[in-house]
Order: sequence, then C-alpha cells, then structure tokens
Amino acid sequence: MELWFTEKQTENFGITAKIKRTLHTEKTDFQQLDVVETEEFGNMLVLDGMVMTTEKDEFVYHEMVAHVPLFTHPNPKHVLVVGGGDGGVIREVLKHPSVEKATLVEIDGKVIEYSKKYLPSIAGALDDSRVDVQVGDGFMHIAEAENAYDVIMVDSTEPVGPAVKLFEKGFYVGIAKALKEDGIFVAQTDNPWFHQHLIKQVYNDVKEIFPITNLYTANIPTYPSGLWTFTIGSKKHDPLQVSEERFHEIETKYYTKELHKAAFALPKFVADLLK
Amino acid sequence: MELWFTEKQTENFGITAKIKRTLHTEKTDFQQLDVVETEEFGNMLVLDGMVMTTEKDEFVYHEMVAHVPLFTHPNPKHVLVVGGGDGGVIREVLKHPSVEKATLVEIDGKVIEYSKKYLPSIAGALDDSRVDVQVGDGFMHIAEAENAYDVIMVDSTEPVGPAVKLFEKGFYVGIAKALKEDGIFVAQTDNPWFHQHLIKQVYNDVKEIFPITNLYTANIPTYPSGLWTFTIGSKKHDPLQVSEERFHEIETKYYTKELHKAAFALPKFVADLLK
Repeated sequence: MELWFTEKQTENFGITAKIKRTLHTEKTDFQQLDVVETEEFGNMLVLDGMVMTTEKDEFVYHEMVAHVPLFTHPNPKHVLVVGGGDGGVIREVLKHPSVEKATLVEIDGKVIEYSKKYLPSIAGALDDSRVDVQVGDGFMHIAEAENAYDVIMVDSTEPVGPAVKLFEKGFYVGIAKALKEDGIFVAQTDNPWFHQHLIKQVYNDVKEIFPITNLYTANIPTYPSGLWTFTIGSKKHDPLQVSEERFHEIETKYYTKELHKAAFALPKFVADLLK
Repeated sequence: MELWFTEKQTENFGITAKIKRTLHTEKTDFQQLDVVETEEFGNMLVLDGMVMTTEKDEFVYHEMVAHVPLFTHPNPKHVLVVGGGDGGVIREVLKHPSVEKATLVEIDGKVIEYSKKYLPSIAGALDDSRVDVQVGDGFMHIAEAENAYDVIMVDSTEPVGPAVKLFEKGFYVGIAKALKEDGIFVAQTDNPWFHQHLIKQVYNDVKEIFPITNLYTANIPTYPSGLWTFTIGSKKHDPLQVSEERFHEIETKYYTKELHKAAFALPKFVADLLK
C-alpha cells in the first residue's frame, strides 16, 4: 500500500508527497502535530495539516529569515525568535559571531520536543549555550519586553490557530517597543499567489510603525506556490544599503550576498500589491 | 464527486488541482494532450501528464523566456520560437516594437489548435500578421537555418518524448549557426531541486559554444518546485550589462528591469551546480 500525504494549500490546490511512515502524531494543547518520513524531502514536520519544514528544503526558509536582518544590522548581539520551535532559525542565527544570546519563545513545547527527536540536523542548535529556550506565549513576551533586542524574527505558522495574533498591528507595535533604537524585525508573511490581502495588510501595518519597510522573497518548494514572502521592518538600518565589508563568510546553501539584494526585486504583481 | 488532477512531478512528489471538467483529451501523433478547467488556475494545458501552462500563472514563464533575451539584444528583428505552440512566448515577443517577424515552429499542430480554442488569452497572438506559424520539427528547422535569427527561444516540454533532442549539444551547435553574429538564445532548463544533472549538463554544453552563458530563474507555482531555470547563451551581448536606456515600457505582470538583473542572482546550491 502506498501512503501519500496531501496538503490542501488552498481549497482547490495542494501538494502530495509519498511517505514511508508516520513517525509521530499527536493533538497537542495548541495544534495537531505530525512528523512523517517522506521519500522526497526526508522527515517533514506538519502542524494542523500544513508543512512547516522538511529536511531537504528547510535551509531556504531558515537562512532567509535569519541572514537578511542579521547582515543588515551592523552588530546584532541579542536576537529573539518568536515561534520557530524546530530550531532552524536559531541554527542560522548562531552562525553570526556577534550574537551573544538568542532567545526562542515557542508556544508549543511539543514542537521543540519532537523536532529534537526527529529533525536533529535542524533542532540541534537549540542545545547551544547561547540559546535561551522558553516555552511560552510570544505575544505576551513581546508585550512585556522593552528596548531589549537587536533583531526580532517572527517564525510563526499561518494566521490560523495560535498564530492569529502574530499578524495583527498591535503585535508589530509591541515589537517596535521590544526592539532597541536601531532594531530590525522580520516576519514570514505567506505567499503572493493565494494570500495577497494578508501581504498587503501586514506591509501597510508595519510601514506605519517602521521607517524602513520592505518585502523580500525566497523559493520554498514545499510551501504554497513555491514563492514565500518576508516582511522586514527596520528603525534605522536599510537592508538594501548593506556595505560590502559587512558581509562575512558563512556557510549557507541558499543565501548569498548577491541574493540578499536580489530577493528584494519583486515580481511586478507583487510590487503592485504594496502600492 | 470531486475530480482532482494530480501530476507526479517526481516519483514521490506532486501537485494536485481540483478540476471542474475536462475540456479536451486526445492522443496526438506526438503526445497525450489534455485541457482541463481548474478551480484555482483557470484552464490548464497538460501534455503527457505534465502541466504546460495555466491561465493564472502563464505570464511568469512567457514573460521571462521572452523579455530577458529581447532586452539584452539591442535591436531584435527576427525571432524564432521552437515549441511554444500555446502562443504565450509569441505574445510577449510581439510587445517589442523592433520585432518585424516572429517564427514559431511547433511539432504538434494539435497544441496550437486546442490552445487557440481553450486558451485564447494566450494563443490569440498567433494570429498576428508578424507571426509565421509552422507546424514542423524544430530540430530540423534549426539544422537547416543559417545566420537567420536575432533571438531563438526554445520553449520545449521536458526532455522526454518529442523534446529529447532539444536538450542535446548538437542542437545548441545548430542554434549558434542559425543565429546571426550577435544572436542570443534561451531555453527552459527545468528546476534545480529535482533535475540538477540536466541543468549542469545543458549549462556546460552551452558554455562550450557561446562566449556568454548564464542561468536565471523565475517562480512558477504549477511547475515542479516552483523554481524554474532558463539557460541563456549569447554571442556578444551580456544579459547582465543591459544599459538603462535600452529598457522601454512594456506591460508585464512579472518581469521588471530590476528583476531582469535579480533573476541571475542564484541560490547558492544552484550556483554551485555550475562550477
């Protein structure tokens, strides 16, 4: 018998992947959590039926969330990751020698637990001594923080379930407060083929709060449409004005300093959403 | 009853789209041809089970095949499209006022016939007076042509069935001969997630024939991995050295002059394939 996992990415379109076996399935306090072993993408973490990350293509998302803001900031020391319990963003953050502390606030401890068990190449970084792993509500953490972080990364699920609050304007106001005076934040903001309204709304909200606001993209095969967007809000440093000497060598599979700039060149129909 | 069309893009991964109905299905002399009406992407042309184009996302592929070489060439007058029976590339070619004649050589007349019937917003351009539509073998056409074209675009299916010859080195030698002394050619060369060997092979073959060889990418949701590559070979004009004044206003939904350059900034794992 062949087993195939199908994610309906919209009502009328989806991806389907052949699986070898289910490694774990559980209804946690927050969401349905599944880990499956796929033929094409290695182990795959699925939350509420949506692919979160796979061993084969995880590097794209994690590198592009982390390195764009971290190379934009001249000296990031303290980084906060909201969500991201799989540890992939943290792994990339730790490649920057200036980072002294990386705080992770993940609402669902089970995501951390099963990522460590089944996605060790991604989650292993969570055991690094510079990492402070907190199981808790990122929204509350942000509400209570002030002038605390150089860079904040919002590595959330889609705006359904526990992550709804992380796409509201009040959250971005809180992030601005939680950042230091030259702080930068980035959030994953879904894809421009099926979620144009969301991208537009987040961009306009962030733009009212941060003097420098931009959208950039990356190709992620297992995410809807294969084209993912990230919205970056910065108080001072422009992600498109990074000096050559700021870039240092890091080991990556997707990010390059040329791609850092190129990722901001948007397809016309995406650029038009932001007008 | 719900009907879903599933394309296995690899042995172990695919996309699936809900369809309203099948508009046409036929075994032509060359391939299995299906046109379905989908909920998400409008009408969709499928050859040998593989999505060729859809009304919703066709503009990406067609614009990126056509405009990158046509803006690179300072004065393209005669353009040849090999394959491309749906007419989408021709539609984009005709947006360039310098083009006096566009020749299309499509091996399967049925593709033209059913594209005109079910994809009129794409295929309508084939009726333009500047277009010479020929039903025939593109490989033979190239073999017989000499110093004839400013730009040649290879809009083929995957390297299975009738298109196998279009991915062989001998074909690129023929293209160089068929081009004028400052000619440019471009070919679709599949995706870098599942077909790394093909990209590497075509790039190396083209590089031995053309002094300027480059790879660029675009996001196409209904193509495998969502990240498509195009290989460009040029005798004289560098696609990365197009002067600002060369760009003129054309109506597009994906291509912009900024994206023209950015599309050549490759993800590191793709750039590494070309070393």
